[in-house]
Amino acid sequence: MLKLFYAPGTCALASLIALEEAGAVYEPARIAFGQNQQRSESFLAINPKGRVPALVTERGVLTETPAILAYIAQIFPDRNLAPLADPFAFADVQAFNAYLCSTVHVAHAHKTRGTRWADDPAAIAEMKRKVPQTMGDAFALIERSLFKGPWAMGEQFSVCDPYLFTIAGWLAGDAVDIARFPKVAAHYARMAERPAVGKVLALIEAG
Amino acid sequence: MLKLFYAPGTCALASLIALEEAGAVYEPARIAFGQNQQRSESFLAINPKGRVPALVTERGVLTETPAILAYIAQIFPDRNLAPLADPFAFADVQAFNAYLCSTVHVAHAHKTRGTRWADDPAAIAEMKRKVPQTMGDAFALIERSLFKGPWAMGEQFSVCDPYLFTIAGWLAGDAVDIARFPKVAAHYARMAERPAVGKVLALIEAG
Repeated sequence: MLKLFYAPGTCALASLIALEEAGAVYEPARIAFGQNQQRSESFLAINPKGRVPALVTERGVLTETPAILAYIAQIFPDRNLAPLADPFAFADVQAFNAYLCSTVHVAHAHKTRGTRWADDPAAIAEMKRKVPQTMGDAFALIERSLFKGPWAMGEQFSVCDPYLFTIAGWLAGDAVDIARFPKVAAHYARMAERPAVGKVLALIEAG
Repeated sequence: MLKLFYAPGTCALASLIALEEAGAVYEPARIAFGQNQQRSESFLAINPKGRVPALVTERGVLTETPAILAYIAQIFPDRNLAPLADPFAFADVQAFNAYLCSTVHVAHAHKTRGTRWADDPAAIAEMKRKVPQTMGDAFALIERSLFKGPWAMGEQFSVCDPYLFTIAGWLAGDAVDIARFPKVAAHYARMAERPAVGKVLALIEAG
């Protein structure tokens, strides 16, 4: 059975939602970041990066949200979570997710994970200060150029949608008003109504 | 015909090498970062992110290295540049490339692109100071946990290899001695001997 390691408040939310959307049978495994469990010896044996998500499969462990999302789409092809038979459209999905992971998630991480890139507290504070601007710029680009509507990739729901929902959910905490991006805001509300999303949020809330 | 926008010294090198390894017919299109051409109106119409690589196809433009690499592997399936028929192995390729784009490339970018995340010159200098450490840590993880050998993903050459070669090529400029990572160093030397790599490096050199 699939087992997904996650922590509340992280991008692992996207993989949880994708698993629910796929109708997967899986075990959610919660990691307590507050107790630094992601750096424990037992978890580092599963994912040496000390991060979530990590998806344990019978073949081994997969990490990195874009890889896990594409994998879920591929092993549940009847759920149509990515245009698997169309290399260009599939690459477009991948490009969207790669932008979220390499630019948008990274911009957000400068708020609370600044120690990854600097040691001096003043520099860390300065990085944190700029987060509303970088997150706002990234979502302006998504709104203007990347988002097709009504779902991220157009008429067809895909694994891009839980990922966008996850990162858009960080905007308020990053002091960016999602209302500046009407298409993204409508997408966020549309996502929140999906049963899979409700189920995952209840799971996380239950602790 | 495919057209790849690239600039010297960027991660677009990985896509150029992959195109050569695939035996693709393509037009390389050089962007002069020194003249800020990536921010020109004409280039922003192609890639609103103002970045390279950007691959122009008859269906539209693809961006983001992991997406372009997987696309090249998919449209030239006989070249066996990714395990296309095996979702787990393909996801493992994707995870490797996602780590390079979201963690390793980002670590490197803090040396010369610090203005993405901070405005204060002292903070930018502090971020630059830490780059040898973050790049060293990332490659230590690659050497210890991710690299399978003799190629990144094991016995079979894949699109991970040009990407690893590209980013490993930044280590010297980031003041990290590649010799600390014997498997990565041997891989780098092995890549440099490939005709596709020689052809692309000559193209870039020719200007």
